[in-house]
Amino acid sequence: MMHLAAFMFTPGSHSAGWRHPEAVPECDMDFRQYAHIAQVAESGKLDAVFFQDTVAVNGSASLDGAGPYRPRQGRTAYLEPTTLLSALAIVTQRIGLIATATTTYNEPYNLARRFASIDHISNGRAGWNLVTSQIEDEAGNFGADHHMAHAERYERAEEFFDVMAALWDSFGDGALIRDKDSGIYVDTAKVHLQNHRGKHFAVRGPLNIARCPQGRPIVTQAGSSGPGMELAARTADLVFTAQSDLGEAQAFYADLKARAAKHGRNPDHVKIMPGLMTIIGATEEEAQARYRELQGLLADENSMRLLARLCGDLDIFAYPPDAPLPPLPLSNAAQARQRHLVEKAKRENLSIIQVARYLATSLGHHLLVGTPATIADTMEQWVKAGACDGFTLLSPYYPAPLERFVAQVVPELQRRGLFRTEYAGTTLRDHLGLPVPPNRYEM
Amino acid sequence: MMHLAAFMFTPGSHSAGWRHPEAVPECDMDFRQYAHIAQVAESGKLDAVFFQDTVAVNGSASLDGAGPYRPRQGRTAYLEPTTLLSALAIVTQRIGLIATATTTYNEPYNLARRFASIDHISNGRAGWNLVTSQIEDEAGNFGADHHMAHAERYERAEEFFDVMAALWDSFGDGALIRDKDSGIYVDTAKVHLQNHRGKHFAVRGPLNIARCPQGRPIVTQAGSSGPGMELAARTADLVFTAQSDLGEAQAFYADLKARAAKHGRNPDHVKIMPGLMTIIGATEEEAQARYRELQGLLADENSMRLLARLCGDLDIFAYPPDAPLPPLPLSNAAQARQRHLVEKAKRENLSIIQVARYLATSLGHHLLVGTPATIADTMEQWVKAGACDGFTLLSPYYPAPLERFVAQVVPELQRRGLFRTEYAGTTLRDHLGLPVPPNRYEM
Repeated sequence: MMHLAAFMFTPGSHSAGWRHPEAVPECDMDFRQYAHIAQVAESGKLDAVFFQDTVAVNGSASLDGAGPYRPRQGRTAYLEPTTLLSALAIVTQRIGLIATATTTYNEPYNLARRFASIDHISNGRAGWNLVTSQIEDEAGNFGADHHMAHAERYERAEEFFDVMAALWDSFGDGALIRDKDSGIYVDTAKVHLQNHRGKHFAVRGPLNIARCPQGRPIVTQAGSSGPGMELAARTADLVFTAQSDLGEAQAFYADLKARAAKHGRNPDHVKIMPGLMTIIGATEEEAQARYRELQGLLADENSMRLLARLCGDLDIFAYPPDAPLPPLPLSNAAQARQRHLVEKAKRENLSIIQVARYLATSLGHHLLVGTPATIADTMEQWVKAGACDGFTLLSPYYPAPLERFVAQVVPELQRRGLFRTEYAGTTLRDHLGLPVPPNRYEM
Repeated sequence: MMHLAAFMFTPGSHSAGWRHPEAVPECDMDFRQYAHIAQVAESGKLDAVFFQDTVAVNGSASLDGAGPYRPRQGRTAYLEPTTLLSALAIVTQRIGLIATATTTYNEPYNLARRFASIDHISNGRAGWNLVTSQIEDEAGNFGADHHMAHAERYERAEEFFDVMAALWDSFGDGALIRDKDSGIYVDTAKVHLQNHRGKHFAVRGPLNIARCPQGRPIVTQAGSSGPGMELAARTADLVFTAQSDLGEAQAFYADLKARAAKHGRNPDHVKIMPGLMTIIGATEEEAQARYRELQGLLADENSMRLLARLCGDLDIFAYPPDAPLPPLPLSNAAQARQRHLVEKAKRENLSIIQVARYLATSLGHHLLVGTPATIADTMEQWVKAGACDGFTLLSPYYPAPLERFVAQVVPELQRRGLFRTEYAGTTLRDHLGLPVPPNRYEM
């Protein structure tokens, strides 16, 4: 059985998808659209919806009061994911609800409370996508002139997770007695202090919220660099990664599962779900026509700006667009995504503009154009070949492509016995087949 | 017409109210209880529900790994207010939704996004209760060994508000064009950078969310010390204050409205709504019996610990409980509340234990025990005498006392023409009669 999550990146993961006649770009700010998308995903019995997040408008770092201000056209404004999750918890019943929140510009006490609260409100469906902030734009909104270095960000993220996980164990099961006769509200022996003192954080605890229905919310991770993989292997229940080559994906999968085992974890308890964008047609021709229609909406200038963000200090605009991709200096942003692109360009002999367009199409993630049957073939092959445990589904725009996936590909996967036809449990942990972790203070 | 908000402090504002046979103390963690309470308040056409918050379990500062750990019995664990608000937005239609969030341990960019997001999700019903953190317990969860001094907290709060308010104006109306033909998603001329550089914050902006339905969320303030009143006069739309003496309340009201005018604001646009706990009976005797029943549930040790928190460095336990309240050293916590207590004790000649019990009954707020008619009399008197614009209603426990207020006092106020019988508008701003502020970048 595979696992499926719907990646939420409004108004679409294809950088010009919102221009498609079917697209409803108002899904950026309109809660009713978000509710509809989550309900569509739930009707397809997907494990979760998964919200990306950035604490900035892209492109804001390039100026200091001097114009012109040129954010990328497309993703600019959207609802904040944690407040969104708890509202979505009310309009859905079973689907998991995952939101990204950065460890770079938050405090663990505040974030632990919010995700625990969402887990209570949703009856055990919350997930936290732990990230480090990747773009310079974000630093400027938090008093920093320059972005924290990659290694320091990961060091802080490791400690951030440890503090969060400990805070989530603050209350033992049954700590809240609420005994009217004796006047004893809380069994203080079951309330645990953290007294954490580390390099980045000092947190006494306890968290002022009872333990979650899931023990703790699901933790997901998208880092695929060396430090990112180590963090994921030690801490993540679900890993979102960019893999578009079967062999590379198998190697990543084997590597990450082995690292999890080295950390003393059951490798089955780390679900690896690479990104996948599908463009679906009743026939191959129809699918290809849909793909060409989408690509016709791209503006090369926008695509090049997406690529430039992954080029570190190198000025990619100084090269002719048809030249091969030059060697890129190590970026302080998404290092794994950068490496993935460089390898793909080498393998497929892509020019700069071709790499830029690829990035603009699927955010650098795996793209499948085909019929429900051929798409299901590849998905089946990847899962059976040990390349992944499922997929994180990117939509070029909303909501039609996700509706099409649910209506056409999900039934095909179900017919093959590869995907659930009904939710077996009620929590996200149930959907992923993960046990509730014991409380560290009560083992 | 008066304004009414339901103060939400689960499991109850009376420190032993949760022990009452009618009480449902599970309202601390159970979202369905919160939903019910908000729906009850909405059925009474109240302006808003208003959630208190603390970023700690009370009493945790008193230890460093050494036991025994003794949190106050009662309010210990509860849902996080901002995630709670957006879930409540889905199960209510009209009532305003106000949550407390501290300026001491948050970042303005993160908080501005969340309240803006709730305002979008609720179609214009969000409010932010701006506070500075008051108790030592909180400092320990954010890397600080000692709590920030009162003056510095207020200085940070002033700047925090300014950054939030500017961030909320990041997007002009109509900035999100989403024009499929031209490929122009956002009118960059209508997206505004803040480039704020102050003593406490450096924030470039813009906020990555469109302007709110309310222009910006309602801002409320509870500070009644000198710096607190100045902050409220300059920034607050609604002021929650502790006043139990008509003359003092009139003086506070006149003072705050005059300060607002000095800041160039229309004094009518600052609504002053002191706290009020009511204990309602069909007859005076029934009301008094209810009051005695509640007071019989108090434990003096708990009440004394509440008082101790307002005594600064003075060890109140060293005094005989029947002695008069000694002079208190200026607290680094809630200075206005401390002054209010001292004056009440002097006026009514109260002993230490009597002051402690008063604090434990209504958190130090105005208490009215009586019939719907006598309670409405006092409320009418206060509003007509220029002591307030309405009240923030404290419930000793949930949900019965609020249900009783809505069923018995609200109709009495409506009969007298003092309270709305139906919502006239759809936003919290509409309910309070406050205009949408213009965008500072587009005036």
